Amino acid sequence: MAPTYTMAGGKGPNSYSQHSTYQRAFLEVAKEKISEAISTKLEINSASNRYNIADFGCSTGPNTFLAVQNIIDAVGQKYHKETQKNPDDNIEFQVLFNDHSNNDFNTLFQTLPPTKGYFVAGVPGSFFGRVLPRDSLHVGHCSYSLHWLSQVPKGVADRNSPAWNKDIHCTGFSDEVTEAYLDQFKIDMGSFLKARGEELVSGGLLFLLGSCVPDGVKMSETMKGMLLDHLGNCLIEVAKEGLINQGELDSFNFPIYPAHVAEFKSVIEDNGCFTIEAFERISHANEEFPLDPEFLATSNKVTFGGVIESRFGKEAMERTHELYEEKCPEILPKLANAKSGMQFFIMLRRN
Amino acid sequence: MAPTYTMAGGKGPNSYSQHSTYQRAFLEVAKEKISEAISTKLEINSASNRYNIADFGCSTGPNTFLAVQNIIDAVGQKYHKETQKNPDDNIEFQVLFNDHSNNDFNTLFQTLPPTKGYFVAGVPGSFFGRVLPRDSLHVGHCSYSLHWLSQVPKGVADRNSPAWNKDIHCTGFSDEVTEAYLDQFKIDMGSFLKARGEELVSGGLLFLLGSCVPDGVKMSETMKGMLLDHLGNCLIEVAKEGLINQGELDSFNFPIYPAHVAEFKSVIEDNGCFTIEAFERISHANEEFPLDPEFLATSNKVTFGGVIESRFGKEAMERTHELYEEKCPEILPKLANAKSGMQFFIMLRRN
Repeated sequence: MAPTYTMAGGKGPNSYSQHSTYQRAFLEVAKEKISEAISTKLEINSASNRYNIADFGCSTGPNTFLAVQNIIDAVGQKYHKETQKNPDDNIEFQVLFNDHSNNDFNTLFQTLPPTKGYFVAGVPGSFFGRVLPRDSLHVGHCSYSLHWLSQVPKGVADRNSPAWNKDIHCTGFSDEVTEAYLDQFKIDMGSFLKARGEELVSGGLLFLLGSCVPDGVKMSETMKGMLLDHLGNCLIEVAKEGLINQGELDSFNFPIYPAHVAEFKSVIEDNGCFTIEAFERISHANEEFPLDPEFLATSNKVTFGGVIESRFGKEAMERTHELYEEKCPEILPKLANAKSGMQFFIMLRRN
Repeated sequence: MAPTYTMAGGKGPNSYSQHSTYQRAFLEVAKEKISEAISTKLEINSASNRYNIADFGCSTGPNTFLAVQNIIDAVGQKYHKETQKNPDDNIEFQVLFNDHSNNDFNTLFQTLPPTKGYFVAGVPGSFFGRVLPRDSLHVGHCSYSLHWLSQVPKGVADRNSPAWNKDIHCTGFSDEVTEAYLDQFKIDMGSFLKARGEELVSGGLLFLLGSCVPDGVKMSETMKGMLLDHLGNCLIEVAKEGLINQGELDSFNFPIYPAHVAEFKSVIEDNGCFTIEAFERISHANEEFPLDPEFLATSNKVTFGGVIESRFGKEAMERTHELYEEKCPEILPKLANAKSGMQFFIMLRRN
C-alpha cells in the first residue's frame, strides 16, 4: 500500500508545485553550502565519467530541479578544478527523481527544464527502503521530507494504548505519545540511512535539508507545532459540526515527527555508515511563514489536504480548510512569538 | 515539443493498457527466443553485480512488465549457469522504462508488479535521442515502436511538394511519397541506433520486436496497410460530413513507416555499431488481427485516436471511430486475403 500523503499534484493554484516557494528560499541558501561542501568533500576520480545524483522525496518540481542543478553545477566545477577538463565534454549526469509511486511523476516529467544537462529517471517507491542499485549513487539530496514518518506510530491511534493521542495532533504530547513518535522516527530514519548507505558509493555525499527542533525547545513552542495544533483544533470543530466522525478522529494522527537535533544525530551514529560533515542551523529570508491567514491556510492545504481528504472525504477537507483560514487570526499573536531556528543543513559522507 | 502519438493512457476500456493483448501474444513467442539469445550471446562478467535493462517505448504496461521479466529471468539463469551462484543473492537489476515525456508514467508506476525483483526507473524522452548515460545499459528491448517515425516526412504534408500524399494515408504511395517516408525512417532509425550504440556496453544486446514488411511485399498488400487505408477513407468521409476541414486533412498523414527487411538491415549496417545476430520472421497465435469490426475499431482507436483527436478534435475522432467500425465489414474479404508474415524478431549485439 502506497501511503497517501504525497503532495498535491498537478499545476493548479492549490498544487504543491505552485506553493513551494517557502522551501525554495531555503534551497537558495543551501545552494552555497552544498556548493562549498562538494568542492571540499567530494572525491573526484578523474577516470570516472558518470555521476548519479538522486533527490529523495522530489515531489512534482520545480524545487527539485533547482536542487539537482545546484549539485550538478558544483560537481562540474569541482571536476574542472581537479582535472582541468571541461565537464560538459567529459562527464555525464543521471538524475534520479524519487518519490512515492503515487506522486505525480507525469507533471514532473512534463515540466522538466528544457535545457537540462542531465539524463532523467523517475524512481517510484518509498525512500524508507532501497530504491536504487547498490553502490550506484554519488550524491543524494533530501529536502523537507524526513519529518514525514512511514506511518502513524501504532499506539498513538489506539484508544486502549497508553500512547493514545486523542485530541491534539501534535503538541502537548504525553511522554508515552512522544516516545511512540520517537520510536517510529528511529525506525524510519534508521531504514532511510540503511538504504542510502547501500546505494551510495564510498565517499558519496548525502545532503539532508529541512526541519529539526533545536534541543531544549518543544515542538509546541515552534510555529510548525502551533500550526499543527491549529489544524487539530479545526478538525475537532469539523467533527462537532458532524462532517467527521468523532470516533474516527480519535484514532487519527499525522505521521509527522520533526526530531530534536540530538535524536537525529543519535540515529546517524547508530547506523554507522556515515560521517557527519555538517549539522547546522541555517536561516533564510522566508525562514518563518508570513503571518497571513490565506497563505497559511493554502500552505496547510497543499501539504495536509491529501491526508485529510483520503481519511475523511473531500467535504470535510474543504470545511477544515475554510475553518483553518477563518480561525487563523486568533493564533497570530501566539505565532508571532514562536521559537525560530528549525531549519537545518545536514551533510553526511558515506564511509 | 513532445509528439502527441503516445498510446491512450489510464486503465479504462479504451486504454492501451487494456487493449494490448495482440502484442502480448507476440511477446510470449519472443520470450523463448530472447531467453535462448541471452543464454548463448550475453557475456556474463562474474565480477559484475548489476544489470541494467531498458524497454524503449514502454507505454503504460502491462506488456512491458512481461517483456522485462523475461529478460531478467534469462539473465539470472545465464548468471547461475556461468557462476554457479544464486542470482537473487548476487546481482541486482535496474529496469529503465522509457517513453515520451507525455506517456502516462503514473499508471505505469501504479501498476508495477507487486513482487518485482528489480529497481524501477521511468525515463522520459524520445528514444530517437540519448536518454541514458554512456555505457550504462546491458540489455535493451523495443517492441512495436519502431514503425512510428519522429515526424511526418516534410514533403508528404505539403501540397506544393512532389511528395505530397493527399488522399491515401498509407498505401498506393507515389514513388516520391515512398522515398520521403523511407528517408525519414533512415534518419530516425539511424538516430535510434546511434543513441543505443552509445548507451549499450560493449557486448550488450538489443532486441527489436515488431512489424517489418517482407521484401517484395507492398504495405498495401498487408493487413496493417489495408487497415490504415481504411482509416484514411473514413477520415475523408468525416471531412465530407464537415467535421474535418478538407484542407487540413490534405496535409495530414500518419508518422508511420514499417520498413522493408532490406531497408531495416541496411540502416543497421550503415550505423556500424552492431552485429545482427538474428533477423527472423516469427509467427504467433494472434499474428493477424481477428476479423472482427469491433475489435479492429477499438484497436485502431487506442493506437491512432490520440493523433486524430489532437489534430481534428474529439468529435471528429469519435465520428471516425464510428465510421471505421460501421464500414469495416466492407473490407473484411480483402483483409482475409492479406499477405501475412510481418512479425519480426531482431537481435543486435553491440560490437
